[in-house]
Amino acid sequence: MTSDSASTPARAQDRSASQMRPVTLTPNVMKNATGSCLAEFGDTRVLCSATVEEGVPSWRKGSHAGWVTAEYAMLPASTNRRTSREYRGRKGRSMEIERLIGRSLRAVCRLDRLGEVTITLDCDVLQADGGTRTASVTGAWVALHAALLSLVEKGRLPRLPLTGQVAAISAGIVGGRPLLDLDYPEDSHADVDLNLVGNEKSQIVEVQGTGERALLSREQLDELLDLGQAGIAQLTELQSQVTGFRL
Amino acid sequence: MTSDSASTPARAQDRSASQMRPVTLTPNVMKNATGSCLAEFGDTRVLCSATVEEGVPSWRKGSHAGWVTAEYAMLPASTNRRTSREYRGRKGRSMEIERLIGRSLRAVCRLDRLGEVTITLDCDVLQADGGTRTASVTGAWVALHAALLSLVEKGRLPRLPLTGQVAAISAGIVGGRPLLDLDYPEDSHADVDLNLVGNEKSQIVEVQGTGERALLSREQLDELLDLGQAGIAQLTELQSQVTGFRL
Amino acid sequence: MTSDSASTPARAQDRSASQMRPVTLTPNVMKNATGSCLAEFGDTRVLCSATVEEGVPSWRKGSHAGWVTAEYAMLPASTNRRTSREYRGRKGRSMEIERLIGRSLRAVCRLDRLGEVTITLDCDVLQADGGTRTASVTGAWVALHAALLSLVEKGRLPRLPLTGQVAAISAGIVGGRPLLDLDYPEDSHADVDLNLVGNEKSQIVEVQGTGERALLSREQLDELLDLGQAGIAQLTELQSQVTGFRL
Amino acid sequence: MTSDSASTPARAQDRSASQMRPVTLTPNVMKNATGSCLAEFGDTRVLCSATVEEGVPSWRKGSHAGWVTAEYAMLPASTNRRTSREYRGRKGRSMEIERLIGRSLRAVCRLDRLGEVTITLDCDVLQADGGTRTASVTGAWVALHAALLSLVEKGRLPRLPLTGQVAAISAGIVGGRPLLDLDYPEDSHADVDLNLVGNEKSQIVEVQGTGERALLSREQLDELLDLGQAGIAQLTELQSQVTGFRL
Amino acid sequence: MTSDSASTPARAQDRSASQMRPVTLTPNVMKNATGSCLAEFGDTRVLCSATVEEGVPSWRKGSHAGWVTAEYAMLPASTNRRTSREYRGRKGRSMEIERLIGRSLRAVCRLDRLGEVTITLDCDVLQADGGTRTASVTGAWVALHAALLSLVEKGRLPRLPLTGQVAAISAGIVGGRPLLDLDYPEDSHADVDLNLVGNEKSQIVEVQGTGERALLSREQLDELLDLGQAGIAQLTELQSQVTGFRL
Amino acid sequence: MTSDSASTPARAQDRSASQMRPVTLTPNVMKNATGSCLAEFGDTRVLCSATVEEGVPSWRKGSHAGWVTAEYAMLPASTNRRTSREYRGRKGRSMEIERLIGRSLRAVCRLDRLGEVTITLDCDVLQADGGTRTASVTGAWVALHAALLSLVEKGRLPRLPLTGQVAAISAGIVGGRPLLDLDYPEDSHADVDLNLVGNEKSQIVEVQGTGERALLSREQLDELLDLGQAGIAQLTELQSQVTGFRL
Repeated sequence: MTSDSASTPARAQDRSASQMRPVTLTPNVMKNATGSCLAEFGDTRVLCSATVEEGVPSWRKGSHAGWVTAEYAMLPASTNRRTSREYRGRKGRSMEIERLIGRSLRAVCRLDRLGEVTITLDCDVLQADGGTRTASVTGAWVALHAALLSLVEKGRLPRLPLTGQVAAISAGIVGGRPLLDLDYPEDSHADVDLNLVGNEKSQIVEVQGTGERALLSREQLDELLDLGQAGIAQLTELQSQVTGFRL
Repeated sequence: MTSDSASTPARAQDRSASQMRPVTLTPNVMKNATGSCLAEFGDTRVLCSATVEEGVPSWRKGSHAGWVTAEYAMLPASTNRRTSREYRGRKGRSMEIERLIGRSLRAVCRLDRLGEVTITLDCDVLQADGGTRTASVTGAWVALHAALLSLVEKGRLPRLPLTGQVAAISAGIVGGRPLLDLDYPEDSHADVDLNLVGNEKSQIVEVQGTGERALLSREQLDELLDLGQAGIAQLTELQSQVTGFRL
Repeated sequence: MTSDSASTPARAQDRSASQMRPVTLTPNVMKNATGSCLAEFGDTRVLCSATVEEGVPSWRKGSHAGWVTAEYAMLPASTNRRTSREYRGRKGRSMEIERLIGRSLRAVCRLDRLGEVTITLDCDVLQADGGTRTASVTGAWVALHAALLSLVEKGRLPRLPLTGQVAAISAGIVGGRPLLDLDYPEDSHADVDLNLVGNEKSQIVEVQGTGERALLSREQLDELLDLGQAGIAQLTELQSQVTGFRL
Repeated sequence: MTSDSASTPARAQDRSASQMRPVTLTPNVMKNATGSCLAEFGDTRVLCSATVEEGVPSWRKGSHAGWVTAEYAMLPASTNRRTSREYRGRKGRSMEIERLIGRSLRAVCRLDRLGEVTITLDCDVLQADGGTRTASVTGAWVALHAALLSLVEKGRLPRLPLTGQVAAISAGIVGGRPLLDLDYPEDSHADVDLNLVGNEKSQIVEVQGTGERALLSREQLDELLDLGQAGIAQLTELQSQVTGFRL
Repeated sequence: MTSDSASTPARAQDRSASQMRPVTLTPNVMKNATGSCLAEFGDTRVLCSATVEEGVPSWRKGSHAGWVTAEYAMLPASTNRRTSREYRGRKGRSMEIERLIGRSLRAVCRLDRLGEVTITLDCDVLQADGGTRTASVTGAWVALHAALLSLVEKGRLPRLPLTGQVAAISAGIVGGRPLLDLDYPEDSHADVDLNLVGNEKSQIVEVQGTGERALLSREQLDELLDLGQAGIAQLTELQSQVTGFRL
Repeated sequence: MTSDSASTPARAQDRSASQMRPVTLTPNVMKNATGSCLAEFGDTRVLCSATVEEGVPSWRKGSHAGWVTAEYAMLPASTNRRTSREYRGRKGRSMEIERLIGRSLRAVCRLDRLGEVTITLDCDVLQADGGTRTASVTGAWVALHAALLSLVEKGRLPRLPLTGQVAAISAGIVGGRPLLDLDYPEDSHADVDLNLVGNEKSQIVEVQGTGERALLSREQLDELLDLGQAGIAQLTELQSQVTGFRL
């Protein structure tokens, strides 16, 4: 299968199947957060911040280790139809996403070297055009890096407790064609949707593939993983550029 | 009383007592909202959006009139100490502020000319440095104007159903000295705090003055009202410049 | 403008524009409360109680100071249409009112002389006919005074930690005419509504003026403040009579 | 067994074992409720109101019948230790009591003759000294009667849809001695507690007997039922006197 | 009155009026619970478990005594119409039942000999065909016995802290006829419903009788109590057989 | 890598790395549910039921299509430490799992042929020993099949609206060794955890792989997918045997 065949409908901005949207990661955009990053994937904009608080959740007390957790929310007007705030009960989707963000960042953070602090990554979607969860993971790592660097600079940590980077990207099959980094119109028509979280060494932190409209063959899964891993390589390189972090 | 006496401690950026921080109102910053405005008062940044939805709350059904309401929230990392999201119950402060925003905008909007739609003004504080509620009111008017203009342009309304403008500003007594547009450090030390909502003709839409640390004489109230009304005149002029709206 | 002009419709019970309804403040009406007061403003009846509990909210621990807070609720049948209890989420209006009551009483109470106790002022509206929030503030002060006196009598406090009195009254513009102490029918037709909290020395503790139906000129605000301050003088005098408290 | 033996400790106010506290039922004490009653059993004071609203709960729609339901709450300062309001979740005890009140009143009300209206009996405890649930049932019947009478007088009902009266009383075994109408100190020391709801013809609407501190023999249950039934005869007679209702 | 008259409609499975459905109590059916029991009354199936946790509720701290409590829930598909889970607020019925289970078991358990542990009896209805609350009490005692026996065997308690057994059964008047152990169709048509909790010595722990469709004479109450006490004698005998417990 | 090497610690019951625990699927175990299945994977026991209700969620009204959804809960005593019921807010984990179950079943059900009904799959974990979400998916398909068959038999559907089967299994890397169908002790020590949902034709419905303790190479992912797909082949064969369903 040739996934870039000329006969299929063109993507917006003439993107090729394996091409990501323009991505920018802008660190330190919030005055009051310990670390922050505005992550933009095309028109998707997520404001990620890292806040450091003393203490850990009660179930971790006495562990002599820290905790890293995440919260994810969409501004009501970030979406085409207004999205309600979750005042009367959390949505499953939001909890799923914030659990994913938290797990992904804990995978590369030495909690045992943090001390008994909790770092919360808040990922607030200012504008949604597909891929908000993967932009959140990618930007949250930059925010976390900035916050940890600030703790090092203040002498509260001897060195960065990071074992590596983590970034995420989506891929999917749209009209029979595997595409990288779906925007909202593509996502709405995707038969299969894959979210991949990985590091700078082509290792996988998390993979979630779902076929609600169509089932997925093993070959298709492989194609999507190939696309995703190539995307993550680009994203971790960009993270290195904006943070100066390289293992 | 000389409220700008040289013997009192200087304000940040050498502001005079009756001087506002630099204010910018940037309309149409959100792709998916019908109308939007980023309101900045110094380091305070509030993203205001206006979303139009069919239908009105059940208690207004059959009224042949529309409804304008507001929601206010702070991003967790907008403040010095992380602010919790209101998932387990609303805070009184937030509800108070969103009720204020809603009342202020309804005061200048002809609900009977809107049709049975609900316009929600979402005011999300990206960064807090004092005066978030007054920045919200001021920016929300710009967002509302943009949304209504869009309805007019789409032919859904024959003309703008606005009877005027509305803007808001804070004033307070700090160290015995009446000051306009308090930033967060000033607000934290204010003996008396006044929030004033007004229009472009020096009329008052809402006044809220509180003296938790000190009581307020009638003369002091008058001084604060003078300061506030001067500030509102500048803000409504700025609104006119960015929107082109003049009665 | 003559605010008592004979040509405007008469008020119920032939009240003049600057005349309050009959007010009674009956202290110590509840057997189990440390202090209590039944506040009646015409047909409005609010049962105010002050309960003293050991300890302070967690965010005040270690301050060596006490805390004074308030809760406000309406009995479901206190109003013309049954009012729902707030079991599934607080109403903004109630939270706004109880925050106002709490701030008003803290303005005249030396928290640093209370010890680490929390005093809760419960204001339960038995019957509503306008002005429930101002009756609550006025009655709550009497209940607080009674509770503090009881602590002094039991030897738990060396002297009353009160720096003065606090009372509240409403005023509004109805049919173009400034009126003091609106009853429910007047309140329903008011163009402008002012709630004023003050002390026995004509100082202002809190002012809240709202014009949802009409805007307010600075002159009108002045007239309403005059009416309100005259009312508060009468109310603080009545408080002195029923409690024996005079600074 | 002689339940009034001189050797046992005297009851407050020298009550005999089978003697109720002074009971007063004062109808129509609330201006805005369709029907109301202040029920006083000694120092226990419950304000009962009946509100009539159009419509029935969704699960009864189309039944061509009405509904009678109840809500029960204690003012925070009605008890010795302040009782929290149930904002963050209902208490099992309150729900149990309001279900009891509702069932008891439905047992004597012809719902099929009400039309599709809902009558809510709100029972708010102003002061608690034992027996609040039984005072609630007894007073709620008077409030319901007043509300129904008002509907008859307004021509909305052809005749009273009541098949009889309903009243309630507690009894218990304290220090081995069966007592009628326990006050709070007695209730706190009771080994066995019985609440009896009955009508004016010695029929039983509901019986609830609990022995958490001691088990109950069948003979003791019989003694308590005898005491309770005698009490209910007095209460239904008092209801007849204050309402004029007699079958 | 002859309650088994041949002219009345037969019960399912030709039960006589005073005959219970086949009852089985199967202890130790859950691998992870400290104690458990599957209680079956005909088609009613309740899975009861007893879990032991360190510590007691905060209001019991320092009492040097333990606590026994219960939770009751129905699987959604246990009933004919799907029953919603109580995620958005507890139902009064469930809270009433779990309070009854808790009180019943505390009546025969020496809390002062438990140490500061909390034992929770979870009663989950797998299938409902009437009598779920009484099956819960009866099965919960077996689960509690098993849990306590396990604590004795592990050396954490010197001996069983039980003062006796507790079992429960329903009775009711259906078509004028007193019946023991109502199944769901009978319960749906019962005029009067009695739940009786008792011990192995014919003592009563709790009695709850309700006549929502018809009132109850004292004679009928006596008949129902006779039926119920005979049923409890059989149930406590069965409990002894399956547990080996006899006082 | 040889994943069954003799040098690694043996699995319980001497399972080989690619061997599932004994699995039984028992359909129609609940009298009141339209369809049901008890799914047992070793000591893991999940009771799955399918309930058919008229109507669809409001956001699907007018679609002329049905809806299939799921709820997942654990009995408190199903786990080693008691699991709290989710009365005060849902857990992210539960919502994630019930969303997975719902998506998986919708992937093989023709919603457009259901009519406007909602089928709820309730998956209640009676006993947990690892793999409860995969047992839920596998059992829920059997329950759904039984419910749909019942609708066909009652003439409410012309034929089964199923496009195939769906089953799920876990795999993971424990001590460096890829294992199929982890039990709880294995799951607790797994470095990487994969849940795979698939059909009887080796197609993938959903894949979720997480490495919180270790990162995952592409080769390892392939090994886990191989294991999982072999497991799903066995499970769909078992489903065919117990239901008679074969495409």
